Amino acid sequence: MADGLKMVTIGGGSSYTPELVEGLIQRYDTLPVRELWLVDVPEGEEKLTIVGNLAKRMVKKAGLPIKIHLTLNRREALTGADFVTTQFRVGQLAAREKDESIPLKYGVIGQETNGPGGLFKGLRTIPVILDICRDMVELCPDAWLINFTNPAGMVTEAVLRYSSIQKTVGLCNVPIGMKMNIAEMLNVDPERVRLDLAGLNHMVFGLNVYLDGEAITDTVLRLMGEKGDQFSMKNIAGLGWEPEFLQALGAIPCPYHRYYYKTREMLEEELEKYRSSGTTRAQVVHRLEQELFEVYQEESLDVKPKQLEERGGAYYSEAACRLIDSIYNDRRDIQTVNVRNNGAISGIPADSAVEVDCVITRDGPKPVTVGELPVAVFGLVQQIKSFERTAAKAAVTGDYSTALLAMTINPLVDSDETAKKILDDMLKAHRDHLPPFADTQKKTMA
Amino acid sequence: MADGLKMVTIGGGSSYTPELVEGLIQRYDTLPVRELWLVDVPEGEEKLTIVGNLAKRMVKKAGLPIKIHLTLNRREALTGADFVTTQFRVGQLAAREKDESIPLKYGVIGQETNGPGGLFKGLRTIPVILDICRDMVELCPDAWLINFTNPAGMVTEAVLRYSSIQKTVGLCNVPIGMKMNIAEMLNVDPERVRLDLAGLNHMVFGLNVYLDGEAITDTVLRLMGEKGDQFSMKNIAGLGWEPEFLQALGAIPCPYHRYYYKTREMLEEELEKYRSSGTTRAQVVHRLEQELFEVYQEESLDVKPKQLEERGGAYYSEAACRLIDSIYNDRRDIQTVNVRNNGAISGIPADSAVEVDCVITRDGPKPVTVGELPVAVFGLVQQIKSFERTAAKAAVTGDYSTALLAMTINPLVDSDETAKKILDDMLKAHRDHLPPFADTQKKTMA
Amino acid sequence: MADGLKMVTIGGGSSYTPELVEGLIQRYDTLPVRELWLVDVPEGEEKLTIVGNLAKRMVKKAGLPIKIHLTLNRREALTGADFVTTQFRVGQLAAREKDESIPLKYGVIGQETNGPGGLFKGLRTIPVILDICRDMVELCPDAWLINFTNPAGMVTEAVLRYSSIQKTVGLCNVPIGMKMNIAEMLNVDPERVRLDLAGLNHMVFGLNVYLDGEAITDTVLRLMGEKGDQFSMKNIAGLGWEPEFLQALGAIPCPYHRYYYKTREMLEEELEKYRSSGTTRAQVVHRLEQELFEVYQEESLDVKPKQLEERGGAYYSEAACRLIDSIYNDRRDIQTVNVRNNGAISGIPADSAVEVDCVITRDGPKPVTVGELPVAVFGLVQQIKSFERTAAKAAVTGDYSTALLAMTINPLVDSDETAKKILDDMLKAHRDHLPPFADTQKKTMA
Amino acid sequence: MADGLKMVTIGGGSSYTPELVEGLIQRYDTLPVRELWLVDVPEGEEKLTIVGNLAKRMVKKAGLPIKIHLTLNRREALTGADFVTTQFRVGQLAAREKDESIPLKYGVIGQETNGPGGLFKGLRTIPVILDICRDMVELCPDAWLINFTNPAGMVTEAVLRYSSIQKTVGLCNVPIGMKMNIAEMLNVDPERVRLDLAGLNHMVFGLNVYLDGEAITDTVLRLMGEKGDQFSMKNIAGLGWEPEFLQALGAIPCPYHRYYYKTREMLEEELEKYRSSGTTRAQVVHRLEQELFEVYQEESLDVKPKQLEERGGAYYSEAACRLIDSIYNDRRDIQTVNVRNNGAISGIPADSAVEVDCVITRDGPKPVTVGELPVAVFGLVQQIKSFERTAAKAAVTGDYSTALLAMTINPLVDSDETAKKILDDMLKAHRDHLPPFADTQKKTMA
Ligand SMILES: [Mn+2]
Ligand SMILES: [Mn+2]
Ligand SMILES: [Mn+2]
Ligand SMILES: [Mn+2]
Repeated sequence: MADGLKMVTIGGGSSYTPELVEGLIQRYDTLPVRELWLVDVPEGEEKLTIVGNLAKRMVKKAGLPIKIHLTLNRREALTGADFVTTQFRVGQLAAREKDESIPLKYGVIGQETNGPGGLFKGLRTIPVILDICRDMVELCPDAWLINFTNPAGMVTEAVLRYSSIQKTVGLCNVPIGMKMNIAEMLNVDPERVRLDLAGLNHMVFGLNVYLDGEAITDTVLRLMGEKGDQFSMKNIAGLGWEPEFLQALGAIPCPYHRYYYKTREMLEEELEKYRSSGTTRAQVVHRLEQELFEVYQEESLDVKPKQLEERGGAYYSEAACRLIDSIYNDRRDIQTVNVRNNGAISGIPADSAVEVDCVITRDGPKPVTVGELPVAVFGLVQQIKSFERTAAKAAVTGDYSTALLAMTINPLVDSDETAKKILDDMLKAHRDHLPPFADTQKKTMA
Repeated sequence: MADGLKMVTIGGGSSYTPELVEGLIQRYDTLPVRELWLVDVPEGEEKLTIVGNLAKRMVKKAGLPIKIHLTLNRREALTGADFVTTQFRVGQLAAREKDESIPLKYGVIGQETNGPGGLFKGLRTIPVILDICRDMVELCPDAWLINFTNPAGMVTEAVLRYSSIQKTVGLCNVPIGMKMNIAEMLNVDPERVRLDLAGLNHMVFGLNVYLDGEAITDTVLRLMGEKGDQFSMKNIAGLGWEPEFLQALGAIPCPYHRYYYKTREMLEEELEKYRSSGTTRAQVVHRLEQELFEVYQEESLDVKPKQLEERGGAYYSEAACRLIDSIYNDRRDIQTVNVRNNGAISGIPADSAVEVDCVITRDGPKPVTVGELPVAVFGLVQQIKSFERTAAKAAVTGDYSTALLAMTINPLVDSDETAKKILDDMLKAHRDHLPPFADTQKKTMA
Repeated sequence: MADGLKMVTIGGGSSYTPELVEGLIQRYDTLPVRELWLVDVPEGEEKLTIVGNLAKRMVKKAGLPIKIHLTLNRREALTGADFVTTQFRVGQLAAREKDESIPLKYGVIGQETNGPGGLFKGLRTIPVILDICRDMVELCPDAWLINFTNPAGMVTEAVLRYSSIQKTVGLCNVPIGMKMNIAEMLNVDPERVRLDLAGLNHMVFGLNVYLDGEAITDTVLRLMGEKGDQFSMKNIAGLGWEPEFLQALGAIPCPYHRYYYKTREMLEEELEKYRSSGTTRAQVVHRLEQELFEVYQEESLDVKPKQLEERGGAYYSEAACRLIDSIYNDRRDIQTVNVRNNGAISGIPADSAVEVDCVITRDGPKPVTVGELPVAVFGLVQQIKSFERTAAKAAVTGDYSTALLAMTINPLVDSDETAKKILDDMLKAHRDHLPPFADTQKKTMA
Repeated sequence: MADGLKMVTIGGGSSYTPELVEGLIQRYDTLPVRELWLVDVPEGEEKLTIVGNLAKRMVKKAGLPIKIHLTLNRREALTGADFVTTQFRVGQLAAREKDESIPLKYGVIGQETNGPGGLFKGLRTIPVILDICRDMVELCPDAWLINFTNPAGMVTEAVLRYSSIQKTVGLCNVPIGMKMNIAEMLNVDPERVRLDLAGLNHMVFGLNVYLDGEAITDTVLRLMGEKGDQFSMKNIAGLGWEPEFLQALGAIPCPYHRYYYKTREMLEEELEKYRSSGTTRAQVVHRLEQELFEVYQEESLDVKPKQLEERGGAYYSEAACRLIDSIYNDRRDIQTVNVRNNGAISGIPADSAVEVDCVITRDGPKPVTVGELPVAVFGLVQQIKSFERTAAKAAVTGDYSTALLAMTINPLVDSDETAKKILDDMLKAHRDHLPPFADTQKKTMA
């Protein structure tokens, strides 16, 4: 790190990159990134060029000595890196479209992170992440791996269990989003709100909420019961909650919890939308992205365009910059990230990934101790953890039976027979992006 | 215990009682029960008289000095008892009929032990059991409480957490039944089979199977995949399993697991049966019981009649006698029962109930250490444990919201809205047997 | 807390009080303490008056509306309190003198906190603290109890296990002192040093040290091996460490660790000092205190006098003010305090007290997760925890055998026979301050 | 195992071997060992021949087809083995003499199993055991490794942590000896006594005692307080206990606990004996062994001679035969052995070795769940576990500092300086049997 930091972003052609560049520019005084390497695959070269050129214009306008490198050569980029961020998408949005629509055919929600769709996103992503880890061990063994790619919990679990890279953090914008939502619901400045969070990625609960230091958890739960449909994210239908359910739960569910506590209504909603418009969330996102890239291409643009904020993933890159800054500067502030549990949440294995409030130090995030999760919440968290671990194992082994097991135990999938149908269909649909399952597929398709 | 044991059976008018009496007669040499008190409630007096008279004829025929007492006075019976068994059914079979049929109206399996039906069975049963515990603390503080009443896991959890009676064991015939099924499937003498079991009541897994000491778990799983429909219980549709699912699971599911791993097919099956015949399992059992009581009334009968074995609950009383005998004689043999976990299964609280192989000593059952359950299994087990704990809390507090929470987190219930509908309907249907919910019901029905 | 805070200091006549008052004055802007009640027992009335008058002069000089109350009526003081601090000493310094000297007669170090002396300090202190807790439940149930009285670890353990007051924190100046020592050894500004601490009170280890964010633990251990005699506290002989021992330990021992890892040399040192001068640390402290009180009496003094800092307990009251300020203002900074473990350190019961880095919130200190302590350190920590728990039980029950057990398992005591001799001698010497042992003592002395 | 078992005994020239052979003969009907390979090192060839010939005469007399092989070729012996027992002693009794006497020079008890002597016995033994494990992985990967060599707890810990052989059990005769002692003290048939045991090797506690199923723990503790000097082993001075200490402890200490709870008296006793006779226990054992071997040489002897029982290690080989028989026959009886904890004792890592009652199955010993050890006991157990783990690490790494750390944290060693002196002296004395420390020793002696 002698004179400035080297940062590498894999999936650099992503539409999120301008936010990341903006964050680096804003923090330059305390976080002296001198080289930013944007890496992508040949299929993404065009987008990489567009985004990379915008990044260069942004840096130039800021008048900072940050060198932007665009490359398809991942190993060259990784050599000597200090921080590696990953935000790639194997199979692009076309794959997500299948993740979401195929399960629907069998009456099951696709859910592209912790559902059947997420299983397949994990099966495609984990081998690539582990390949990056092997490169890192060789080329930048002291670097931090900061992953945004979903399913971020499953990916972090896989890195912790199947790689020797242990300096890894998984990032999500749900924690920030929940805080913003609460502030909005209360109509107060978000700075006045503190939210204690614990659970798993996309399965995180707000255990306590404070406004100016006063506990207001019950108030927030009551308000959510009244206006639940306002408390969600761009990509998740904001169906309302049963007030008494929230009251007894005693913890703030995250937007994704609707898939598990309102499965029937969410399924109806998705089926309805799919039937009426033939559209999944993936297709909506695809359209948004195309529009963004058109904006990015304008030569006159040299700042992050406003339209980016309207995209679902707001705060993602902001979260990454804040995290890297706190690690580099040993800030010891508190951020909610995915890391090794290490005993923070009782009953979850020490070496599993959890999403939890952490003190961010030079030595990485250290979880604030949670102890026992609320009783009613604990079971579902464990079930998703079982799913994540089984899915990670399937991704690493390429074993058909293990993949079927993961699919069957997913709480959105209602039987082993349904699981098998969805699995077989998806294995076929994604065959080009699942090399570890190549043998399986030959058999399945024979 | 000076000269012989005093045993008390609450719900003594149950059709299972003759099996219990037979067991005591067969073991008289080593288990000298001199007094057996059969206790029941006024509504059950007629059955108590019929069963009690049969019991007296059985003892007389055996020529043993076992005194049979029939009484409606529970406190008199409990005074100075050594062993108390409970096998009562609050609301009789009519209540079970509602437990099973009301959820079906909303497209949800009733499942009278770990499902929505089981929640209501628990809400009715737990206050009574805790009342018995209060009597025991006063009248027979050193006695063992051995519970057969379902949901046996939830009831044991409630006794351990909400009573000072800690000498308690929950009993089930599923463990013995699984072993018998395996022996039958292999066509071998059950004595040659050993099965290591761990989990929760009606949520127990066979972790290893041995034939003459040789591990044959994989073989059994393969056979179950081939002929899964033979491996079930009288009261559970024996739908077959996906072979690859079983292989990856790596553990023998119990018959009740079909409700969780084959929810879709089980629901279809139950709905089909209900629609076509308007019949639930409760009604089938009701008919069987009536037939049994007609047999019991025959004055010439002085042994346990053969028809009893055809009833679903085979081995229940046998299990109780074996357990009591091993406690009394400090036998240190291994039986599968529901007890305080105490660390046996990693990740489940020490003070929660689990169903696990135990060494049966004079000091009670001591679990054989299990360590970590298989990854894929652990999540579902934890989810049912969360359900059991939340249900037990609802039973004790009579709190509507807590009951709604329990209903919502049950894995068979697919949303908070559905949960609320089923809950409200069942609270109304069972109102005579739910005194702790009296206030709630007034409001609900207003 | 509506208009300003009410704070109560039990043992208000302590020589530390001026530091506390200074801290409140300095923080008045953010920590609006309007009433400070200094409470003491009749034997301490004179000192209370001297210190209290100084406190009033200090507040007056600062021109702040903090009202100082001096009282012997603890219950009046506690009514409606927001924060209660305890810094009393049952039996005064004369008792400490016995704690230190009696064990020496039998060839055993007294060690007035975690040694045999500490056992007796605990036996005298814990009943009084639990009495205060009972008052608090009645008079100020929402107040925080912040305890400085040693043995602070054992006292916190006792409050957590034997009282319903759970909003309690134990305080020590060792953590700050260790950081200061390291900064001094490195000759750098303490602000540049961060030290991760975990263990028990007076049994805490520095797990990592950072200078400007860079890990320098090994360097510090090397330096300590070279100049160990400089790294101690006023009241503990600074005997040097074996360099290779420190290197393999891999964690920074606290000054008190010399009693356990250098027992032989510390005993020789104490015996030598005692024989040559007939003096224990208690007597030195006594002399220092007399000098302080002479200074405090000077009417012209209206600030904290410099001499106070030369006393062993530097930073104690500073630590209390920092803690209260961070709780009140929900600062979420990190301080090292004694609290419920809650899973932070693996293998220590969740409901035991540990001394560990905590995020200080409005809801109290929340431990930063430690996970497993270094292997070699873990055993000693557990042994002291066993000692603390057994000692607390003895204090609560007044049971002679339990006190003997606590004495015997203390690592400084080398046999059950020696333990019995010391115990009997000390029970006699302290009989006036051990009401729970009144019966025992009658027997012992008969 | 097709036609009979192959058993290998490493250290076959041990004086215990005839007991082992007797055990195999007595159990031949159910435990068909057809080949017994006695393996030893060249220095032990003479003893191997003497013992081996006796073994052959014993088998011949019994008229059984057990083939006895005598060999110095360990790898030939291990090929295809079913059970491997280890009972070797690196450096013979001469080494033990040093283990016991060198620490005494520095005023420290040697204690050849869990004390400083035990550290060195571990440093000599563990590399050899791990070498055997490497051979086993290659030559008999499915065999069970049953170790008698002390320190059996540390050796089991080392095998579990540093080898891929997980089918391993450590054996000790203390558990059987404690039961026998209690029976003798009560003057009853040992068959009537049951003793629940848990802890570590030579650090095991009797948690409950039953006579004919009735709990009599308190009675036994009272009797031990009265006649403590009768309750020990041949090799441990039977110093009496303080009655109130035992009462509060609430658990039966094992004979070795005198070293930790009566350190002062045991040290005086050992020093006294050493000064007066210049004799350690090693020398006594050496003389006993010479006498035994003279007896073994008599051609007319063809049974286990009576004199062997008078040796300290009675029941050792009996324990091995019982264990092997129960594994082979899947007997599911209960024996107390050293195995992976797996959660049986709370607070001890799952992958550490503990000595605990186990159900012995074909799949190996499965611990009966203990839960929390008594509070006062837990700390010492953890301290010895820390010592064992640190010692095992030193043995594997040959690291001087780690060995010093192990020595310093041993509860019998009272300072880092004393530890260093003992360590340096012993490293020199044992240099021929400590190849991993060769480099260290060069430096130390330079
Ligand atoms: Mn996310
Ligand atoms: Mn059952
Ligand atoms: Mn302190
Ligand atoms: Mn032994």
